[in-house]
Amino acid sequence: MSTEPAARDPGIEALHALLGDRLSTSAAVREHHGKDVSYHAAYPPEAVAFARSTEEVAEIVRLCAAHGKPVIPYGTGTSLEGHVAALRGGVCIDLSAMAEVLEVNTEDLDCRVQACVTRKQLNEYLRDTGLFFPIDPGADASLGGMAATRASGTNAVRYGTMRENVLGLTVVLADGRIIRTGGRARKSAAGYDLTRLFVGSEGTLGVITEVQLRLYGIPEATSAAVCAFDDLEGAVNTTILTIQSGIPVARIELLDELQMEACSRYSDLDYPAKPTLFFEFHGSTAGVREQAEQVGEIAAELGGGDFRWATRQEERSKLWQARHDAYYAALALRPGAQGWATDACVPISKLAECLLETRADIDASGLIAPIVGHVGDGNFHLVFLIDPDDAEEMARAKAVNDKMIMRTLALGGTCTGEHGIGYGKLGFLQAEHGEAVAVMRAVKQALDPGNIMNPGKIVSV
Amino acid sequence: MSTEPAARDPGIEALHALLGDRLSTSAAVREHHGKDVSYHAAYPPEAVAFARSTEEVAEIVRLCAAHGKPVIPYGTGTSLEGHVAALRGGVCIDLSAMAEVLEVNTEDLDCRVQACVTRKQLNEYLRDTGLFFPIDPGADASLGGMAATRASGTNAVRYGTMRENVLGLTVVLADGRIIRTGGRARKSAAGYDLTRLFVGSEGTLGVITEVQLRLYGIPEATSAAVCAFDDLEGAVNTTILTIQSGIPVARIELLDELQMEACSRYSDLDYPAKPTLFFEFHGSTAGVREQAEQVGEIAAELGGGDFRWATRQEERSKLWQARHDAYYAALALRPGAQGWATDACVPISKLAECLLETRADIDASGLIAPIVGHVGDGNFHLVFLIDPDDAEEMARAKAVNDKMIMRTLALGGTCTGEHGIGYGKLGFLQAEHGEAVAVMRAVKQALDPGNIMNPGKIVSV
Repeated sequence: MSTEPAARDPGIEALHALLGDRLSTSAAVREHHGKDVSYHAAYPPEAVAFARSTEEVAEIVRLCAAHGKPVIPYGTGTSLEGHVAALRGGVCIDLSAMAEVLEVNTEDLDCRVQACVTRKQLNEYLRDTGLFFPIDPGADASLGGMAATRASGTNAVRYGTMRENVLGLTVVLADGRIIRTGGRARKSAAGYDLTRLFVGSEGTLGVITEVQLRLYGIPEATSAAVCAFDDLEGAVNTTILTIQSGIPVARIELLDELQMEACSRYSDLDYPAKPTLFFEFHGSTAGVREQAEQVGEIAAELGGGDFRWATRQEERSKLWQARHDAYYAALALRPGAQGWATDACVPISKLAECLLETRADIDASGLIAPIVGHVGDGNFHLVFLIDPDDAEEMARAKAVNDKMIMRTLALGGTCTGEHGIGYGKLGFLQAEHGEAVAVMRAVKQALDPGNIMNPGKIVSV
Repeated sequence: MSTEPAARDPGIEALHALLGDRLSTSAAVREHHGKDVSYHAAYPPEAVAFARSTEEVAEIVRLCAAHGKPVIPYGTGTSLEGHVAALRGGVCIDLSAMAEVLEVNTEDLDCRVQACVTRKQLNEYLRDTGLFFPIDPGADASLGGMAATRASGTNAVRYGTMRENVLGLTVVLADGRIIRTGGRARKSAAGYDLTRLFVGSEGTLGVITEVQLRLYGIPEATSAAVCAFDDLEGAVNTTILTIQSGIPVARIELLDELQMEACSRYSDLDYPAKPTLFFEFHGSTAGVREQAEQVGEIAAELGGGDFRWATRQEERSKLWQARHDAYYAALALRPGAQGWATDACVPISKLAECLLETRADIDASGLIAPIVGHVGDGNFHLVFLIDPDDAEEMARAKAVNDKMIMRTLALGGTCTGEHGIGYGKLGFLQAEHGEAVAVMRAVKQALDPGNIMNPGKIVSV
């Protein structure tokens, strides 16, 4: 790790005195930490601090506060709306050394982890306990980062999002104080719900250093199935009817024709390039069979083909890995292009309308943009495959995205189901929440009066 | 309605000019609005304003703000920690005229109601839709009040609490601004989670005037059963094993020996006076049978007697009404006594320890205090039957309560699972959350700089 302090900056020098060679000012390290996996441009921080403990994060934040330097927390860098960009300079706190599972209470189905344990690491750790943690964004993200962006994924339709599954947090505040929010009890009416205030706050109110999580017993039986449809409408309506029927499906994922083609090519699958639903059912052996039969009947009525089953663990893993790799598969559709992933979420009765009109807009624009979605929640994603240096192409993508988000809002939806606001969706947040954004700003100013915590994200101050 | 304005108070006169005879300063009306159903003393407000719309609430709050008068929202007055007490005078806003169901979206399983629709009114309204709203505190409380206190009840083990089931809110802020939080999408990563900040804020951050709620399909099959145990431990361990086994039980309620005696007498049931679990199972016909068999096996191993089934709707209603009347049944154990209901919630592995030690404390104290609990969540209640004018008796009850709460906190639990803080548990909130209470206070001061919103509750400023 390089340690070339910027020319005589007293804040950087103080951090260097604290951290030694765990403070880096090398261009490569800074560049890497100023960019997530999205198309958003890199904004490198002045320095990157590699923290080892909550107390050390608190020390770093105190020094940054004393020197008026912004603080940007960094986990795996897999966010999608520019969350880690150092828009106003400052210090990136890299939490990757904080990757310990601190406790697992198997009897109570909960655990506590340091912020940079990833979802896959946690499930690997839990392997012999009979428990698992269900929330699975596409990337193998850190659990602290997932809490900070209110992440979800394919299982949210059954198990909820980070909002429902974080029981408590350890947070370093803007002045270096350390607080614990929430607790291990399954419910509490004790005061303001600070846990859920910090979940989704994207580092703008504090740095999350530990996460207490709900866990679930691995179901007795699991089966997965893939079902192709002749048109998008049949797939969407199957989703709607499944949810409305109260069938407790664990996963129900939509990939449109283009995305299926991309995934089949990227992950070496032999599925047809048609709008397709991926299902997973969890429960008792009889319960899983019953759910699958009910959904099978709905799909058959709405133009679905045969169910292709994956009941063995390896088959299922391959299937879901292909789904998780959808973003990379999409990128491979246009080599050299960057991906602009955007998401939105509507009440499920509006899903068909929203998706079909958006698909028509994409087609009319001449852009390449596959659609995938956690459609059981009404949540869907586009990935525009674009050249960020081509202003005209970017303008076309922006127009489609703007129209999609405004359509979503008009249909009672939200401008992002799981990617967050970062700095990419500030304007849409205002369009969605209006005067409530002023309340968000008041909260921000109360907890971070110096505006040093990831400034420029969620609310501009 | 009486309208005798207090002698020349300009704030009260301004409200009188706005509301006419919908502003009351009669002693009886003020007294009634200054007290909830708990043992806490009445603190009557200076006046009671009967509001008809969100805009009118905003007008009232603006006038109160201009005259520096506290504002206390009032729904059904069924809170348990003195939430409605006008500790510093001011104006109570009675929302009972705001009792309209505004929209039901059956396809999306959601609805929007005015704050004073009660849970039973909503379910009555939904009767023909095949949908229901599951959250059921003991009282037929208003949905706005339930949101404000983060209420839950017997179904929370399966359906969650108000935290999980409020999709959005309309709130009047301390300066009279009206905001909408959340929305109809099932998930959102758009900005700070203001919905969950206001849920559980007990009127201290704003007045909730409308609530957007999740609904659920009425399950295909429902059955209920009652099972008596020879000792509390067997009942608690049956609960723990049921939850740990991941059986999706809809309700699992514990009534101790004393509470069963009280309920049998009050509700004319013929159950033995033994520690007893009440179960309810929701699902498909086969699923309900499977769940019931699994739980039956667990109970039989742990000393449970036969299951007594209630499958017909009327039998079930009688059973659950008896459970909901547990508080009144307890009161009838000592005619003339007041009830001091307190609750706590622990991780479920600690439930047996916490309950048995608490039971021993009660017995040693010579007090009468039945225990009931939503034990699937680790949540339990005591009702001390006390004479509030007997200082020595109150001191004994306080000692048992203090010890129970501190034991709960030591076991990783929370000082209230569902009753809230009000002004009865301020000290325990501090003991539970420490420095995080300072963050709650900062949020309170940011949103209510004049400290007019239900002052003296949750956090003292």
